Amino acid sequence: MKKGDRYGLHRVIEPAGAMPQPAWRIDNTPICYSNEILIDVETLNIDSASFVQMRNQANGDVNKIAEIMRKTVADRGKHHNPVTGSGGMLIGRVEQIGEDLCGKVNLEVGERIATLVSLSLTPLTIDEILKIDTDRAQVDIKGKAILFESGLYAKLPADLPDKVALAVLDVCGAPAQTARWVQKGQTVVVLGAGGKSGLLVLRQARLSAGPEGRIIAVEYGEKGCQLLRGLGWADEVINLDATDAVSVMRAIERATNGQFADVTINCVNVPGTEMSSILATRDEGMVYFFSMSTSFTAAALSAEGVGKDITMVIGNGYTKGHAELSLSLVRECPELLRIFSEKYA
Amino acid sequence: MKKGDRYGLHRVIEPAGAMPQPAWRIDNTPICYSNEILIDVETLNIDSASFVQMRNQANGDVNKIAEIMRKTVADRGKHHNPVTGSGGMLIGRVEQIGEDLCGKVNLEVGERIATLVSLSLTPLTIDEILKIDTDRAQVDIKGKAILFESGLYAKLPADLPDKVALAVLDVCGAPAQTARWVQKGQTVVVLGAGGKSGLLVLRQARLSAGPEGRIIAVEYGEKGCQLLRGLGWADEVINLDATDAVSVMRAIERATNGQFADVTINCVNVPGTEMSSILATRDEGMVYFFSMSTSFTAAALSAEGVGKDITMVIGNGYTKGHAELSLSLVRECPELLRIFSEKYA
Repeated sequence: MKKGDRYGLHRVIEPAGAMPQPAWRIDNTPICYSNEILIDVETLNIDSASFVQMRNQANGDVNKIAEIMRKTVADRGKHHNPVTGSGGMLIGRVEQIGEDLCGKVNLEVGERIATLVSLSLTPLTIDEILKIDTDRAQVDIKGKAILFESGLYAKLPADLPDKVALAVLDVCGAPAQTARWVQKGQTVVVLGAGGKSGLLVLRQARLSAGPEGRIIAVEYGEKGCQLLRGLGWADEVINLDATDAVSVMRAIERATNGQFADVTINCVNVPGTEMSSILATRDEGMVYFFSMSTSFTAAALSAEGVGKDITMVIGNGYTKGHAELSLSLVRECPELLRIFSEKYA
Repeated sequence: MKKGDRYGLHRVIEPAGAMPQPAWRIDNTPICYSNEILIDVETLNIDSASFVQMRNQANGDVNKIAEIMRKTVADRGKHHNPVTGSGGMLIGRVEQIGEDLCGKVNLEVGERIATLVSLSLTPLTIDEILKIDTDRAQVDIKGKAILFESGLYAKLPADLPDKVALAVLDVCGAPAQTARWVQKGQTVVVLGAGGKSGLLVLRQARLSAGPEGRIIAVEYGEKGCQLLRGLGWADEVINLDATDAVSVMRAIERATNGQFADVTINCVNVPGTEMSSILATRDEGMVYFFSMSTSFTAAALSAEGVGKDITMVIGNGYTKGHAELSLSLVRECPELLRIFSEKYA
């Protein structure tokens, strides 16, 4: 067995010298290098933007969607939509573990895993397309995929439905980062606490800050707030538009007796909430931006504009142990399992 | 004296409830609230994008530029260019310090200061436009400005030329953050080390890491690299395009014997250098993005794509003591003073 590059550079064909994700074409030969994992694929979870684009291009015809998918993989060696630039993830069974990884990865041949790196960088072959679920953007196939040494994955738990596990894994970086940064007794503000990542973050914030901590959830809309109040994890639930910086500041000032948050975690899925996050946070506190709508320049310039000496962290989707931590959160909390089963599965 | 809001909300006219920066119009009455500072303005340093726009609109006619400036301030109560959205900063003399700030700010009436918050949120009146320097985008005026309680400023040092001080103050957050994060003995990579912020960061990194630390400077172009080698602050100077992630990774791997950087500081002024920063950094290390060209999503998705558990920090332009630290760096280092005098003043 030959050894490949940790990041998969040995499979890049075109352009030479690129990383696998930005590369146009990679080598999808389903033969394992000594530091790769070969996966027998069951299902592709296509990124929503990518699937909608293909469905439109195919006028909703599943046979044409299948044709587009085969062409993408034939052209590029990966399911990297050339129009949207996005990928998705996959579920499959471990078929082979390269010899250099044996003993290093906590995996056995035959186990079911979900990849946590994008399909846009994952070598993939499709032998047959079995079923296209147009509602869920899920495609059952016969095929093989390769996971690089640096590639992230999670074992699919036997005790949770696949779809619940996938929904949790999709945002598992956020609660794991919460566990890393939030200390016992701290005051934590969660913006957008009623969404998928917000719920996991809120639960973890309560656990990490402990009963002596103070947790404030901000969510827009009475329905979401009622759900959060019913859960009882936050000391206070505030119904507010997180783009309204002045209102958020005043509400958090009141809720914290003017102390503001030690840590603010932004899980809002709309743009324009940087200033709210900054104003909710005490001097020398920290803001953790998990929202993909965050603007780097808005965050940097807003903090300077109000003279706030705070640490602003870019949400890294990966933290060690993030998948296990998030799945445990759901496993150990019946309300969370119920909400994820009803809303996201 | 009435007391105003810390962030200047009491001066917002339109739209109600906005922060002063996004507000269309603010109250520029040059009368000090008890927590404001009144400044007798000498010079406006107009943001470059804003000045170019006005010069074009005026076909280069300084009288027309003056007219546009007066109209902007009359309409908005601040020199907030309605086309570019940008501001600039100003130099002036402290005329009055609100009574609630006396003893709290280290300032005296008559001292010369530069504001470190944008003109786009600074209440300003213009009585007379004295001189427009179209090469430097500097406008000497008679007028008054207001600094809010949260507003940042720096005393202009008597021992440095104004223009050197302004160039240093423009980027003073970067070396101050370097001093906060870099520890003795660490390995530090500075990307874009030959630019204005890069030079200050490189100098501070050497001081903070000490002789036992390892400092690696990456700069694109042989001329810049020769300058850096001549300074002798970096243990190694590498001539590389920071957008080429694979080359940067390999160069840093070699320069660090495969250990990579504890801290990587990105001062590059072009887009597309997020992956290089991530790959240059060791697992559980830190990347500090000072470049305004940074894309939030590129950083977040790149780290996940390569499974790198690192902390990525958004460069906050403000850190306590940032102006003093940066001016001292230049004052105490004749080479830095010479370069700033030649290149940026």
